[in-house]
Amino acid sequence: MLLEHIRIVLVEPSHPGNIGAAARAMLTMGLRDLVLVSPLHFPDEQARALASGALSVLENAKVVTQLDEAIADCDFVIATSARERSIPWPLCHPREMAERVFARPIQSRVAIVFGRERSGLNNEELHRCHLHVNIPTNAEYQSLNLAAAVQVLCYELRCAHLNLPIKQEQEWDVATAKHIDVERFFEHLERVLRQLDFLKIDAPRQLMTRFRRLFLRTGLDEMEVNMLRGWLRAIEEQCRDNT
Amino acid sequence: MLLEHIRIVLVEPSHPGNIGAAARAMLTMGLRDLVLVSPLHFPDEQARALASGALSVLENAKVVTQLDEAIADCDFVIATSARERSIPWPLCHPREMAERVFARPIQSRVAIVFGRERSGLNNEELHRCHLHVNIPTNAEYQSLNLAAAVQVLCYELRCAHLNLPIKQEQEWDVATAKHIDVERFFEHLERVLRQLDFLKIDAPRQLMTRFRRLFLRTGLDEMEVNMLRGWLRAIEEQCRDNT
Repeated sequence: MLLEHIRIVLVEPSHPGNIGAAARAMLTMGLRDLVLVSPLHFPDEQARALASGALSVLENAKVVTQLDEAIADCDFVIATSARERSIPWPLCHPREMAERVFARPIQSRVAIVFGRERSGLNNEELHRCHLHVNIPTNAEYQSLNLAAAVQVLCYELRCAHLNLPIKQEQEWDVATAKHIDVERFFEHLERVLRQLDFLKIDAPRQLMTRFRRLFLRTGLDEMEVNMLRGWLRAIEEQCRDNT
Repeated sequence: MLLEHIRIVLVEPSHPGNIGAAARAMLTMGLRDLVLVSPLHFPDEQARALASGALSVLENAKVVTQLDEAIADCDFVIATSARERSIPWPLCHPREMAERVFARPIQSRVAIVFGRERSGLNNEELHRCHLHVNIPTNAEYQSLNLAAAVQVLCYELRCAHLNLPIKQEQEWDVATAKHIDVERFFEHLERVLRQLDFLKIDAPRQLMTRFRRLFLRTGLDEMEVNMLRGWLRAIEEQCRDNT
């Protein structure tokens, strides 16, 4: 893993100053790849002012309208999350997150996704991610600024990066699956589950959420995604034959 | 060590927004004790705005004119430092800093001192501190924002605090010496060295700097300071007798 292969994604940031401060936080720690999902104001003078000397990060930032677009080419996606969830998701401390990122294969592309200043990420967004990371905060005052959260996680990534020689890199024979291909698999799975009338017997969202959690936790490779899709197609053919 | 016993000291901050953002960063991590040395603007509306909900930290912040006053009652003082020094000082990574803070006796009072936005701390200020801490930054862009630096160090302190049960607390039979008493010892020492004409034989500042480094690195307790002062008094009497 290289710091250059780690993307910071900000979902609907409302204060342009936070975008600039986040760019500055990133570059101090050696990260440069910033993607903004539907920022309220961008480009913006306040963002430039707070970026200080890190204008190159702002100027190369990509703006998209959907989280899926921001993470399409990534194979490991981490969401920042402050809250406990009804369906628990793999959750870790920032230090463990950084260790896990640097245990990825060298060609891996990782995204760290930060939510809105007031409301964070919604469940649909959280359930698109392999791992949730929680910065431990004071229970009486949890109001961590967005750029400050970016700073803390980028700092942990830099620390892990500097420790790199002592770590053993994970070996894998097949390339890890890209987000976009995993999402297509989930769409396919849901279609098949509906065809099978399987989604009726439980609250449909809960069931899909639990499937997402299972497969995202495992971390699929490209061959596994192809296998699963082939299996789904076989089920579909079976359904067609029976009607 | 308790988080409540750790003080954040900002020396001559010029942007009030940074003071507010630092207060917010502190409180998210459970720190509350803020001391400002000659801030350019304080109190200030922008500081309040950027403190978000952490107004209590700002409102209880103490304003002083000298670093010595800010750290007078502390027995372990850590300076943030970006640069290499001509006379190397004990220097550590933020993680080691947090470990060393939490290895202190429970009644210890610790200060972490941050310098000016543009120029940091000067040598005289750095040489008043037991330990220097350096946040590892990108060599090509080291421009860490003041409040972001406060956030990173407070985060490391919180992480060490949460790990506390696994650590063994350092046992000590005598209370650690307060900054003000150690400074009085240094003044006394310098006086005695001049009386002895010892300061003439070397560049006087370098020599005192090296004495400071030696004693600050050791970490004196109250009894040791009393012993050293007694010894200095004995030397003074000797000098008087010889004239």
